[in-house]
Amino acid sequence: MQQPAPARRSSRPPASHPAASRPRARRALPPAAGSAGLAETRSFSFGSAKRPLVLESGAMLGPVTLAYETYGELASDGGNAVLACHALSGDAHAAGWSTDPNAPSAVDGVGADEKGVGQRGGLGWWDGMIGPGKAFDTNRYFVICSNVLGSCRGSTGPASTDPSTGRPYGSRFPPVTVGDMVNAQRELLRHLGVERLLAVAGGSLGGSQALQWSLAYPELVRGCIAIATTARLPAMGIGFNEIGRQAIVADPNWRGGDYYDGEPPARGLAVARMVGHVTYLSDQSMAEKFGRRLRGKDGYGYDLSAEFEVESYLRYQGASFVGRFDANSYVVITKAIDYHDLAARFGDGSLERAFGHARARFLVLSFSSDWLYTPAQSRELVEALEASGAAVTYRNLRSSYGHDAFLLEEARQTSLIRPFLRRLRERRG
Amino acid sequence: MQQPAPARRSSRPPASHPAASRPRARRALPPAAGSAGLAETRSFSFGSAKRPLVLESGAMLGPVTLAYETYGELASDGGNAVLACHALSGDAHAAGWSTDPNAPSAVDGVGADEKGVGQRGGLGWWDGMIGPGKAFDTNRYFVICSNVLGSCRGSTGPASTDPSTGRPYGSRFPPVTVGDMVNAQRELLRHLGVERLLAVAGGSLGGSQALQWSLAYPELVRGCIAIATTARLPAMGIGFNEIGRQAIVADPNWRGGDYYDGEPPARGLAVARMVGHVTYLSDQSMAEKFGRRLRGKDGYGYDLSAEFEVESYLRYQGASFVGRFDANSYVVITKAIDYHDLAARFGDGSLERAFGHARARFLVLSFSSDWLYTPAQSRELVEALEASGAAVTYRNLRSSYGHDAFLLEEARQTSLIRPFLRRLRERRG
Repeated sequence: MQQPAPARRSSRPPASHPAASRPRARRALPPAAGSAGLAETRSFSFGSAKRPLVLESGAMLGPVTLAYETYGELASDGGNAVLACHALSGDAHAAGWSTDPNAPSAVDGVGADEKGVGQRGGLGWWDGMIGPGKAFDTNRYFVICSNVLGSCRGSTGPASTDPSTGRPYGSRFPPVTVGDMVNAQRELLRHLGVERLLAVAGGSLGGSQALQWSLAYPELVRGCIAIATTARLPAMGIGFNEIGRQAIVADPNWRGGDYYDGEPPARGLAVARMVGHVTYLSDQSMAEKFGRRLRGKDGYGYDLSAEFEVESYLRYQGASFVGRFDANSYVVITKAIDYHDLAARFGDGSLERAFGHARARFLVLSFSSDWLYTPAQSRELVEALEASGAAVTYRNLRSSYGHDAFLLEEARQTSLIRPFLRRLRERRG
Repeated sequence: MQQPAPARRSSRPPASHPAASRPRARRALPPAAGSAGLAETRSFSFGSAKRPLVLESGAMLGPVTLAYETYGELASDGGNAVLACHALSGDAHAAGWSTDPNAPSAVDGVGADEKGVGQRGGLGWWDGMIGPGKAFDTNRYFVICSNVLGSCRGSTGPASTDPSTGRPYGSRFPPVTVGDMVNAQRELLRHLGVERLLAVAGGSLGGSQALQWSLAYPELVRGCIAIATTARLPAMGIGFNEIGRQAIVADPNWRGGDYYDGEPPARGLAVARMVGHVTYLSDQSMAEKFGRRLRGKDGYGYDLSAEFEVESYLRYQGASFVGRFDANSYVVITKAIDYHDLAARFGDGSLERAFGHARARFLVLSFSSDWLYTPAQSRELVEALEASGAAVTYRNLRSSYGHDAFLLEEARQTSLIRPFLRRLRERRG
C-alpha cells in the first residue's frame, strides 16, 4: 500500500480552542466535581475536491471535515498533548457535558445506561477517564478527541454531501482505513498547533488508531496506550463485523447504500447493533445484569414479545442506535477495522518488524473477560513489541465486563495510565 | 406448568423398522466400514384435531407427525434402546447414508464441510458416533433418532398443514417446549415398542432433551448423556437466539410468519444462521480455519464483496441453510431452547431439588473452548446432580472446536460413552 500524500490544509484560520473545563455559564446540567465541564464540539475542514486527501485505497476525498473536542490547555512547550481515540460508534464528545442539550452522546456498551452516558446532552464516552484529576488529567494535559473519518457524528462520512453531486455520498463514499483516520487526525493536530503527542490512547478501534499512530508517525508519538485492542483482528471478529454488514445490506431500505432520500435500513442496522452489543459484554456480566429474568410476572408469554429482560434490552439498544448512527458509516468503519493489519502494513507480514519502526513507549491493557479483543491478541502484540525492542508495560486486568471494560474499569486503568503519562512527561520535559 | 395429558396414539400399526445397518441394495453411495449403512427416514403420526397433544403452554396440536430413523435392533429384553437427540437445526438422519439421494442432511457447524455431512444424500449428523463398533454401537444397541416437534425436517412444525384451515400453520403454530418435544418422542417410543431407554443422549438442544427425559420420565431412563448443554440457558445464549429471531422478523418477507404463499424471509434467516454459526465455533478454530486470509490475491478489494475467506464462508453457510430450513421453525425451536429451565420446571427454582426426581446415571461432557454452552454451565449442572445424590461422571474435554466439538471430537467422546453404556447394560441386563 502506498503512503498517502500529505493533504493540504485549508486556508481557514485555526478556530480558537478555549479550555472546555471551565463552563462559560450556568446551565441545566452543572458539571460534577472533577468534570471536564461543558464541552463544545467544534469542526475543522481541510482539503478540497481539487486538493483531496489521498486515501490508502488510492481513492481521493475532499474537502474533509473532522468534528473534535479539546479539554485542558496546551502547555507553552507543546509537550502535554494527548489524543484520545474512540471506538466504532463513538464520537468527539469524550468528556464533560455536551453544550448541545439535544446532542446524543455515543458510547459502546452496557456502560451507557449505568452512567448516564449516551443520554441526550450527556456525559462523554470516556468521562470517567478524562477530566481534572482523572487518568487523563485535564489540569496537566491538553486532551483532544476527534470523530473518525467515515463516521456520521460530525466528521466527513457517507452521509456527508458529495461536492461533485450536491447529494450525500452514499455508495460513492470511498472505503477508509485506520491509516486514513489517523492521517486526517494529523491534519487536525497541525490545525491546533500540536506538533507532537505526549501520548495517543484508545480502546478497541481507538487502540488500533493509537497503534497506527505509533508506526505511521513514530517521530511524533512519545507514548502509546493501547487498550482492549489488536494488531490485526482475527477471523471471529471479522465474522461478527460481516454479520452486522450482512444484516444491513439484507434490509430492503439499504438500496446499495443510497437511501438518504428515503427510509434508512433501520431494522438491519438495529440487528447489526444487537450483534455488536453482545460481543462487547461477557457471559458473566450478562448473567449478572439480566440472568433469565422475565419481564412479565406470570411466566412465559409464549409469543414473540420480548419475554426475557435481555431480549428487551437488546431490542432497545438496537432501536436507539438507529437514531444516532448511520448504516453506511457502520459498514465503512467495520471494514476499516477488518482491514487494519499492522504486520501487513508496516512489517511485510511480521509484527516484530513492524514495531521496529516505533519510537514510543507502550502501555498495553487487556481485560480477562474480553472475548472479542482477547488477552491473547494483546499478548501477541506485546510479544512483538518486546521482540522489536520497544519499551512496553502490559497488564491483563481481571474484569467481568468483557470488551466494554475499557469504558467501565476506570479506577484500575487510571492507576496505570496516570503514572505512565507522568513518567512520559518527566522524561523529556 | 401443567403436566401435559398423554396424547392418544394413532391407530396405525407400527411400521416395521428393519436394521438400517444392512444396505438393501447396491447404491451410488456405498456404506463405509463401520457405517450404520443406508438409513431411511420414516414417519409416525399420533393424535388428531379431536384428540390433540396438549402442549406445556396449554395450546393443543394434533395430529402430530414425527420423522425418525432407527439403527440396530431392539433386544428381546427391550433393554438396549438408546434415544439420540439432535440440536437446533438437526434432523432424524443421525447415522449412515440417507436412502434419499436428494435429501440434504442437517448439521450444525463447521463439521459439515470437513466430513461430507450436510451434503445431499450424505452422512447423518452423528455418523461418527452411531454405527457398528462406534460409541453408540449399533451391533449392541437399538438407536432411535427423531426430528423434534416444531422442526421442518419431516416432523410437524409451522410449515405443516393446519387441518383446521388446510393451509400451513405459519403464525398459528403454537409455541413448543423441550418438554413437548420429549412428550412427543414418548409417543414414538410406545409406537416402536420401546418401553424403557438404556440411555438418552444428545449435544446442545439434544442434551437439553436428554436432561428433560431424565426428569419428565425418570422411571424410563437408565442413563442420561448430556453433552455441551445446560440446565437453563444463560442471558448470552438467549441474547444470540433473540438476535437471530430479530434478523428473521426484520425481513419484510416474514409477514408475521405467514409467508408460505410467497417468498420466505431468506435473507433474515441467512443472517440468523450466520450468527448461530459463529457461536458454534471458537476463536481458535476460526483462526486456524480462516485466519485473515483473503480470497483475492491482490490485497483488499475495498468493496463490499466477501474479501476475507471467513466472510465468504459465513455467507455460504447462511445461504445454504435457507435451502433446508424454515424460518418459522428456527423461531419456534430457539424459543424452546430459551424457555427450557429444569430448575423452574421441576425444582421450584432449585436445580438440586429438580434432580432429586431423577433416577438415571449421568454422563456430562463439556468442551473447553465452548463459549456458548460453557464448561461453567456443565459444572453448575454437575454440582446440582451431585448435591441431589445422583450418580454422575463429568469430563471437560480440551478441544479447540468450540460448541461444535460434540459433532467432531468423536474419539474422546467414544472413550467415555462406550464404557458408560456398557456398564448401564451390564448393571441391570
